[in-house]
Amino acid sequence: MIRRVNHIAIAVPDLELASESYRRLGVEVSEPQELPEHGVRVSFLEFDNLKLELVEALGDASPIQRFMEKNPGGGMHHVCFEVEALDTVATTLRESGMRVLGSGETKIGAHGNPVIFVHPADLFGVLTEFEEVAEAR
Amino acid sequence: MIRRVNHIAIAVPDLELASESYRRLGVEVSEPQELPEHGVRVSFLEFDNLKLELVEALGDASPIQRFMEKNPGGGMHHVCFEVEALDTVATTLRESGMRVLGSGETKIGAHGNPVIFVHPADLFGVLTEFEEVAEAR
Repeated sequence: MIRRVNHIAIAVPDLELASESYRRLGVEVSEPQELPEHGVRVSFLEFDNLKLELVEALGDASPIQRFMEKNPGGGMHHVCFEVEALDTVATTLRESGMRVLGSGETKIGAHGNPVIFVHPADLFGVLTEFEEVAEAR
Repeated sequence: MIRRVNHIAIAVPDLELASESYRRLGVEVSEPQELPEHGVRVSFLEFDNLKLELVEALGDASPIQRFMEKNPGGGMHHVCFEVEALDTVATTLRESGMRVLGSGETKIGAHGNPVIFVHPADLFGVLTEFEEVAEAR
């Protein structure tokens, strides 16, 4: 049902500083993108097998604001799995007693695809995103 | 210099329970391995592009003991990058002012390859492992 890890997100206090640190290690880092409707600025660390997403809070109501208050230096924020049929996954999650965050309905995520998030307490402390990715790779 | 993410480790309080939860989501999970010399039991979640390593403390002096005291429900523990020449990376890390944990020398990690760890405070709250993987994939 789940074939690929789509990305891992790392929340950072300063996107430029973090990007510079990774570039110094020889990692390719994309230019920052502002996603005001999602309350974040992001850059991607590009690896052959997946992307790490550096995420910085944008605006006063950023969804990572609380995480940054608890972890001012940054930290691993969430894992995102690619799935083919998000509705099937959502049903399995609910049947397993896992809590889907928000209204429980899918919404459009930062990459334009439908996503849901599962409460970290229901997956061993890991905030987990499931993203519907239609095309096979 | 860094081409691939080798694995992401998730520390969990109960390896069997965590494995069962991921299996229910359709993830392939390997049988548990005891690594007493590293103070952990591990299982791998197998994805097409990388492995997630579930890690449970083993014995009284487990290196993840402190993390589990702080995060009794579990949590993302570290990221591991594959590198070709660990010595070169270690030099770059030191020149960038990042602290290599322990003696600073490479040691043999849980997968039989030379590894070093960088202090999480020097990479935005993320404990980061660098593993020398000789063969190209």
